[in-house]
Amino acid sequence: MTRILTAAAAQLGPIAREESRESAVSRMVDLMKQGAARGVRYLVFPELALTTFFPRWYMEDWAEVDSFFETEMPGPATKRLFEASAEYGIGFYLGYAEKTPDGHRYNTAILVDDKGAIVGKYRKVHLPGHSEYEGHRPWQHLEKRYFEPGDIGFPVWRSQNAIMGMAICNDRRWPEMYRVMGLKGMEVLSLGYNTPDVNTSAWEPNHLRMFHNHLVMQAGAYQNSSYVIATAKAGIEEGVGMIGGSCIVQPSGEIVAQAQTVGDELIVADLDLDLCKMGKETIFNFARHRRVEHYGIIASQTGVVEPE
Amino acid sequence: MTRILTAAAAQLGPIAREESRESAVSRMVDLMKQGAARGVRYLVFPELALTTFFPRWYMEDWAEVDSFFETEMPGPATKRLFEASAEYGIGFYLGYAEKTPDGHRYNTAILVDDKGAIVGKYRKVHLPGHSEYEGHRPWQHLEKRYFEPGDIGFPVWRSQNAIMGMAICNDRRWPEMYRVMGLKGMEVLSLGYNTPDVNTSAWEPNHLRMFHNHLVMQAGAYQNSSYVIATAKAGIEEGVGMIGGSCIVQPSGEIVAQAQTVGDELIVADLDLDLCKMGKETIFNFARHRRVEHYGIIASQTGVVEPE
Repeated sequence: MTRILTAAAAQLGPIAREESRESAVSRMVDLMKQGAARGVRYLVFPELALTTFFPRWYMEDWAEVDSFFETEMPGPATKRLFEASAEYGIGFYLGYAEKTPDGHRYNTAILVDDKGAIVGKYRKVHLPGHSEYEGHRPWQHLEKRYFEPGDIGFPVWRSQNAIMGMAICNDRRWPEMYRVMGLKGMEVLSLGYNTPDVNTSAWEPNHLRMFHNHLVMQAGAYQNSSYVIATAKAGIEEGVGMIGGSCIVQPSGEIVAQAQTVGDELIVADLDLDLCKMGKETIFNFARHRRVEHYGIIASQTGVVEPE
Repeated sequence: MTRILTAAAAQLGPIAREESRESAVSRMVDLMKQGAARGVRYLVFPELALTTFFPRWYMEDWAEVDSFFETEMPGPATKRLFEASAEYGIGFYLGYAEKTPDGHRYNTAILVDDKGAIVGKYRKVHLPGHSEYEGHRPWQHLEKRYFEPGDIGFPVWRSQNAIMGMAICNDRRWPEMYRVMGLKGMEVLSLGYNTPDVNTSAWEPNHLRMFHNHLVMQAGAYQNSSYVIATAKAGIEEGVGMIGGSCIVQPSGEIVAQAQTVGDELIVADLDLDLCKMGKETIFNFARHRRVEHYGIIASQTGVVEPE
């Protein structure tokens, strides 16, 4: 029996600073509706999908910061997404800014099944950027100011007949992320991102932004024999260009669907989950080939220690 | 002061089963001489560069097996390489089958400096293939029969003003390999390979062989802000097609030089070692961004453990 999961990346164009959550949710429900018409059973929304990418601004007023955070999920504005999920029979991944009852803030994603029930939560581990205002940047990237690093690690869940994992944006550049979930049998990784089309930390040719975006996910998919569904918030948002390039990568590392625009756009592919088996059973049969006795410092040493 | 190392991948075409070590070394010295004329200071020869890729045959006679192994380095046939190194002022990486005085067999590479002195040794950690005859394969891949997994781990060395690491063939598919050396400040990874142009363990489209070859090395270079110099033994060797695609990858993950043939061919690039800094100091500043508290199972769990 083949296991086919018809899945989609539900890319969003820019969300203005003044755009309401209701408006963003309405755009997302529209994409879900398009998905229903195309037989989609699971879709992935971007990182921080309910608002503009607010870490580009330095804010000292924490009440203002908190206006971008959710304190309940579902909440009044997001309830419609869960209702649409149950109505259409479509599971989803949603990225949002989470504030906990005891005051912690995380860059979070949830996994929702095709009946509108939350199955799992992930909190972004690899926060990029900085924590204080940096005047040399054309805009800020203050994720290290507004969020704490995720405290849940990299769990996977069985949902919709697949073993699913989640990650967020900058996590995709870190092979450790894929591998921890690969070791748990991951078959589908969902990931949302907001990636400016200019590197603000150092000069590099702008075309590399898209090259790196795809390179790391294609390698992660191949090296862990998994699908990757990656969804951008794209286009020019509050004056900042954001890359699109939302894509679905198959376990061979090849991109099988890719966004053509930087606006709201649904891209769809049939994931044949049994295609994950070939790699997992042969070249990336971990039990047979991995040599953990030589990997120790990956998990015990954070920074670089150069030789004498 | 910029640190430029003019380096080369010294690709070899096929080596017949009956071809002598003297003949192979002569071809290598010729490539070294070409390198000298182009200002090369360091070059990388393939994996098991002195003989044909013998793991494609099942042998029960260990004396026959041992005919492909070196018991000393340099030995009578390889001495010329070390002399040429000193004469031309070119350091090199050489892959060969090593038999130790106490009878262990490894798939080994050595790093030699530009005065012909051995600086370091690496023994292949990730042995692909199988250990017994498998009749369904068009040819065998018996590395697990003829070699033990490397027992040295992934050291790096300071040589020729760079921090250098070594790996061999299938190692390149494993992100752990790059990361362990990335954590030691690696700037240049040298890697030789022998890769059939058909996957004999399971069917997959043949074009993926080259795609995967480059994908994993480009990702490894980018994710560890390092150069990769990768050198094939290529062409049709004893009836088996072997991919070429020898390349030099810069720290951005882009290929900056690539072989055009599947024969003996030298490709050259100027490695600007200071280009490694940008990644190491910003997006892949490990001390700042890695979260080892979530990486534990990478180094403690060999195979897959699926969720309930």
